[in-house]
Amino acid sequence: MVIDLDAFEHNVATMGIAWPGRTLRPHVKAFKSTALARRLAEVGHTAFCCATTREVEGMAAAGLGDDLLLANEVLDATRLGVVAARGEARITVAVDSSETIAAAAAAGIREVLIDVDVGMPRCGCAPADAGQLADQARRLGLGVRGVMGYEGHVVGVADRQQREEGVAASMALLLEAHDLVGGEVVSGGGTGSWDANRWVTELQAGSYTLMDTHYAKLDLPFRRALHIEGTVISRSPKGWAVADVGLKCLGMDHGLPRIDDQAVWFCSDEHVTFGPRTGGSVANIGDRVSVWPAHIDPTIACHERLHVCRGDQVVDEWAVDLRGW
Amino acid sequence: MVIDLDAFEHNVATMGIAWPGRTLRPHVKAFKSTALARRLAEVGHTAFCCATTREVEGMAAAGLGDDLLLANEVLDATRLGVVAARGEARITVAVDSSETIAAAAAAGIREVLIDVDVGMPRCGCAPADAGQLADQARRLGLGVRGVMGYEGHVVGVADRQQREEGVAASMALLLEAHDLVGGEVVSGGGTGSWDANRWVTELQAGSYTLMDTHYAKLDLPFRRALHIEGTVISRSPKGWAVADVGLKCLGMDHGLPRIDDQAVWFCSDEHVTFGPRTGGSVANIGDRVSVWPAHIDPTIACHERLHVCRGDQVVDEWAVDLRGW
Repeated sequence: MVIDLDAFEHNVATMGIAWPGRTLRPHVKAFKSTALARRLAEVGHTAFCCATTREVEGMAAAGLGDDLLLANEVLDATRLGVVAARGEARITVAVDSSETIAAAAAAGIREVLIDVDVGMPRCGCAPADAGQLADQARRLGLGVRGVMGYEGHVVGVADRQQREEGVAASMALLLEAHDLVGGEVVSGGGTGSWDANRWVTELQAGSYTLMDTHYAKLDLPFRRALHIEGTVISRSPKGWAVADVGLKCLGMDHGLPRIDDQAVWFCSDEHVTFGPRTGGSVANIGDRVSVWPAHIDPTIACHERLHVCRGDQVVDEWAVDLRGW
Repeated sequence: MVIDLDAFEHNVATMGIAWPGRTLRPHVKAFKSTALARRLAEVGHTAFCCATTREVEGMAAAGLGDDLLLANEVLDATRLGVVAARGEARITVAVDSSETIAAAAAAGIREVLIDVDVGMPRCGCAPADAGQLADQARRLGLGVRGVMGYEGHVVGVADRQQREEGVAASMALLLEAHDLVGGEVVSGGGTGSWDANRWVTELQAGSYTLMDTHYAKLDLPFRRALHIEGTVISRSPKGWAVADVGLKCLGMDHGLPRIDDQAVWFCSDEHVTFGPRTGGSVANIGDRVSVWPAHIDPTIACHERLHVCRGDQVVDEWAVDLRGW
């Protein structure tokens, strides 16, 4: 797995102009690497989103625990409470029910955000219920920092105007909830709504750092910065080649990966079979091939390390140290 | 990740009657665990297939190196040569080109199988070319044990008669190659062709041990033995529930996982959203839910350990120790 450092730095700089410092809360689920997170902290993004308890533990242990939000519901917050008790990190947990509020309080968590359903069928309470959940949390001694809500159902809409309208409608729901909840934080958004979401106090974006072919379909200024470098290990006279980059090293939920100037036929566990587009030629045994994943988050979770390259030179290696749960 | 030990033992016993001892060469790519492989070795299946160099290294280090076939092409066999030089394992490598033969010889590998294209567009030489590749290998001092060819394009055909005809046609090609190559081994097949393939001297099956919803569509006597145990962390009054089993812990290339009596709507990185089928009710926060993966091979590769259960009791833990490359 290879990172193009020039593209990564371009992406970080571009996002940092629009969302400087704490107005961006990078989502570590997209890259699962404290080494990469440290690069973001160094340019001022010192608050992070996490999706798993393991991510919170790892970020805290790496000294990146200034302000960690577990943007996810948990019914057993014991391990988070252990991290909080050590004083290693400021930990805030998303809650959307009495049960998740009780779990946070029982584990010694001190702060929560009320997670609000803004239109995507996943976690989050109804906007109208956000106020009473905040009251419940406060009665249990929890600090309620505000609200969060992710407009995941619209961030990938290709048409810009439709995307902007969808984001605006979602954020109207989130602000309705915020009026009932109070607090300083309105957290939401992502790479796809980076320039459409004008309402959150902090943007939860992660994919912009490395990008993938799914996000590349949108009109975003971020460059693709991550690929899998493979080798052609077999070639058929019938018109295809096979490289050693299979579905076990790729997130496949968004479909097949891309190989420039070639048609990807299918992936097996450890292989990708591909052939030339009209007029092209079949790759040769030994050729290096760049395989561009459709979805970076689960792709990175398959790997142990990121090879960081400046041009053709490997200049660093970043561990993918936040895998697992 | 949970293994139902009763179902696993049923599967192992059922396959072992049809393909006893060395006539079965279990494919470790399906489960990536030396602890599970040891169970198979204990009942006589002491020869194994591997898909990656890491799998070969791990099996050899675990003392399971009696007869390891890397059923895959490699252009750099250096690490395999190191294992072979230690005398820890008998290593055979699949080859389908002059380049892969040269790589095996250069690394000190002693034995190969000629990999033959039997109809699936992936690795393997044309049957008519198998003899000259075997000659090349022998000239370089390699022992040629025979041929292998995987009829992966037909093992999943739902109609039994069509499946059997497809297997027969593929194996005719493999035997044509075997006539040109010689040697004792004709290796091929898989879980889907376990009772349709009557031509190989050893069957390369792995998925039968644990099964998945994809193979469950076929009329096979193997029971599903692996699921992900999740917890409902959120529930919407609009009619859905969310469990903490997302696409990062599932192989998604064969599609969505299954939850019995519920309709799976979609998976996010760390969530599955699901709702009741007609007449059912929405799951409650805190409910345990069994999520059945569509494809076990990449699912297991997402995890660090298998929790082995007899009924409701966790009786053992098997490390998934053959991940990576």
